Amino acid sequence: MGNENLTLLTDFYELTMMQGYFKNNTNDTVIFDVFYRTNPSGSGYSICAGLDQVMDYIKNIRFSQEDIAYLASLNMFDKDFLDYLVDFRFTGDIYAVPEGTVIFPMEPIVKVIAPIIEAQLVETAILNIINHQSLIATKASRVCYAAQGDGVMEFGLRRAQGPDAGTLGARAAVIGGCIGTSNVLAAKQYGMPVLGTHAHSWIMSFEDELTAFRTYADLYPDNATLLVDTYDTLRSGVPNAITVFKELKESGTMPKKYGIRLDSGDLAYLSKKARKMLDAAGFHDATIVASSDLDEYLIDSLKTQGAAIDSWGVGTNLITSKDCPAFGGVYKLAAIEKEGTFIPKIKLSENQWKITNPGNKKVYRIYDKESGKIKADLITMSYETYSEENPLKLFDPMATWKKTYLKAGTYSLRELLVPIFIDGKCVYESPAVMDIREYCQQELNTLWDETRRLVNPHDVYVDLSNELFQLKNQLLDNLNVNGHN
Amino acid sequence: MGNENLTLLTDFYELTMMQGYFKNNTNDTVIFDVFYRTNPSGSGYSICAGLDQVMDYIKNIRFSQEDIAYLASLNMFDKDFLDYLVDFRFTGDIYAVPEGTVIFPMEPIVKVIAPIIEAQLVETAILNIINHQSLIATKASRVCYAAQGDGVMEFGLRRAQGPDAGTLGARAAVIGGCIGTSNVLAAKQYGMPVLGTHAHSWIMSFEDELTAFRTYADLYPDNATLLVDTYDTLRSGVPNAITVFKELKESGTMPKKYGIRLDSGDLAYLSKKARKMLDAAGFHDATIVASSDLDEYLIDSLKTQGAAIDSWGVGTNLITSKDCPAFGGVYKLAAIEKEGTFIPKIKLSENQWKITNPGNKKVYRIYDKESGKIKADLITMSYETYSEENPLKLFDPMATWKKTYLKAGTYSLRELLVPIFIDGKCVYESPAVMDIREYCQQELNTLWDETRRLVNPHDVYVDLSNELFQLKNQLLDNLNVNGHN
Repeated sequence: MGNENLTLLTDFYELTMMQGYFKNNTNDTVIFDVFYRTNPSGSGYSICAGLDQVMDYIKNIRFSQEDIAYLASLNMFDKDFLDYLVDFRFTGDIYAVPEGTVIFPMEPIVKVIAPIIEAQLVETAILNIINHQSLIATKASRVCYAAQGDGVMEFGLRRAQGPDAGTLGARAAVIGGCIGTSNVLAAKQYGMPVLGTHAHSWIMSFEDELTAFRTYADLYPDNATLLVDTYDTLRSGVPNAITVFKELKESGTMPKKYGIRLDSGDLAYLSKKARKMLDAAGFHDATIVASSDLDEYLIDSLKTQGAAIDSWGVGTNLITSKDCPAFGGVYKLAAIEKEGTFIPKIKLSENQWKITNPGNKKVYRIYDKESGKIKADLITMSYETYSEENPLKLFDPMATWKKTYLKAGTYSLRELLVPIFIDGKCVYESPAVMDIREYCQQELNTLWDETRRLVNPHDVYVDLSNELFQLKNQLLDNLNVNGHN
Repeated sequence: MGNENLTLLTDFYELTMMQGYFKNNTNDTVIFDVFYRTNPSGSGYSICAGLDQVMDYIKNIRFSQEDIAYLASLNMFDKDFLDYLVDFRFTGDIYAVPEGTVIFPMEPIVKVIAPIIEAQLVETAILNIINHQSLIATKASRVCYAAQGDGVMEFGLRRAQGPDAGTLGARAAVIGGCIGTSNVLAAKQYGMPVLGTHAHSWIMSFEDELTAFRTYADLYPDNATLLVDTYDTLRSGVPNAITVFKELKESGTMPKKYGIRLDSGDLAYLSKKARKMLDAAGFHDATIVASSDLDEYLIDSLKTQGAAIDSWGVGTNLITSKDCPAFGGVYKLAAIEKEGTFIPKIKLSENQWKITNPGNKKVYRIYDKESGKIKADLITMSYETYSEENPLKLFDPMATWKKTYLKAGTYSLRELLVPIFIDGKCVYESPAVMDIREYCQQELNTLWDETRRLVNPHDVYVDLSNELFQLKNQLLDNLNVNGHN
């Protein structure tokens, strides 16, 4: 809480390695890729988020005198290295996928090209920020998908994993599709709609529920959304709300926005009953808001049951991504520059799909021209160029006999990674959060329904170019011949 | 990130209710209790944490000019209320359980006594902070229990839910029993040991593994813990590590602390094989550190399998409390002062165990005098006094025929809630984190083994005094008679 300077927000081994490179006079330029291996929550895609905070972090990297004094106190760092840290700045290049973009496993979403001492420092904070916000943006997009166009409000601050998780989480939730948040600080900081009316304690602080409702409606003439489950939803809450709505109508002060909020009990049953009661009293345009430990599966089930709910407040399960509270982004060395050439590097693993993709790479997204939907992503070497004018042959890197031929004119191409920092200078301007949200909605429209569905979605292909595929196999062969270097 | 002023870290409805009370000239003193209903991760207990950050938050509550301008821009708040916020301070009392204390469901762990406008504002931030840190401290205590006295290191920053979750989470993890963290910022900020050596990228940045190991051992003569799984653990990593250890021994520069770290593969098999290889080479005191998606169940299983692991690095599953990423602390109205007397309030629910405990309360912990272990907790009215000199009769509030009689002299009593703020002034000094950790270890020793075990632990009784039990039933009866007010 209250850390403007996040320079020390890093794992200790980054600093011991940095000193190691420094002492060893090793400061070759390297390439690190951020990518992830599995979509969270069984999703068919993820949403990338957090870049704006990564930019802030990179711009503000400075070891303060206090930081350096602390490091000196550990008796692990020599004076020459600590002196070097005084003027330490990030001087490299960063390429990244814009926030709100749909992403898939194994493709680089951030690429850092920098002297190894710098590239090593920034690993942990970049992963922390991107992992967190991508997780919550992805979860929010699933919850909003289940709500089928109804408004979903982010209500999770009290159960978020600390202040940042609440505030940056609300930002990510809005990017992923929420219409707003209850978190005032997040709304102020990121220019997002702020939402909410009253709690049970409001009702309980009055002698009776009717007086509490009346007082609230009187104070807020624009929005009388009344919380009806403090005592008994159908026998007390809804009848009292209807009484107040009648009084407002009679006095000619009916608010534009009014209705009830259900926060407990059987939401399917209660919403249908309450709808009937409101309709019978002539309040057809009263909205019914529901909250109560909701997630995408419960909302989907309530929709299937015909629940009469118009908008949704989602807390704990969204702000923590409860069924999958971590996004597995990793930061892996892809190449080291020696005498002006990038030497590709590969990390072995017992699991074939865990082996990294070597070299300096870029990512093309391939769209079906007619529908605008994503056909596949293609990871290529950075020196390769592809043109929509030519036919394109794709193959599955795990099962190379699976091939797809795309005719020229039937597909379009887009490069996903855009420059964010060049030579340490920020060259990218982050859009406003509500604009990122809008862009994210368009991005989600490029997915086929089969990829968006909540359970057992269709996987989008992420293919390797023939050049990259050959390089990867060659490096693997060499490693085996050389007995693992 | 970077919010020194957390005053707006609140749900919007707190502010609309605050204005409601203000406009309605209602600012009675009220009592709110923070309590929770279920221990996370199937635990038999929880560890309370986060109080120091709550204290910082309460002390620093100030609506800045910028905050007030933002609220004004929403067109929901009147000038008189916004003017009132300019000098707004917290003027009430707060009682809380000290950090590191073992706690159980349903008992108040924080009690706020303040004018309702103030008590309402602080709800969300108090819950956010206490929920997060109590969650992680509890999880850490479980992981450390499984490790049976081996050191457990907190390594989760890159997968934490944002910067605060990493840093405050590391604080909570150390309170719960971890010996240190890899998070440099957290270690600096909270005076905790910082730990770590090198990553795979260090190994990969050299021509070969042996050179990478040699260079590292040469640079850090105090701790040669070498990461051995970059290429092939048993065929390359461990033999190369042994080569380096032999060289160090021959040159008379053997570090006090040395060994290997396993970060992938079958940890039971690899650790036993590696142990044999190290022993055969005469390196009996080389330590084996393991990391790789560990949690309390995996560590417990590795222990059962006789894995030769001496210390443990735990990341994602601890820092997110992956199997249960939210602590369900709530903030419920317990009483409202009218003409100098607290009128108890109760919140109904369809579920009997979700009904709140009314009135101004305190909590006694009852210890078995002989063993020092906890016998039960007893929630009483604040005006009641109990003495160890008298016999004590306890009964189960859900099954009142279950009774326990304690003879005088066989038990001891302790009041759990201590004053933190009185009339808005902080009267409590937080111990250093490493001292809270020490206290927490003592606290855990007051639990019976049956309550500490990981699966199906024995629940500790949290009983109500007869006075409180009668009051609760009387309020419930009244509510039923009056048709829910």
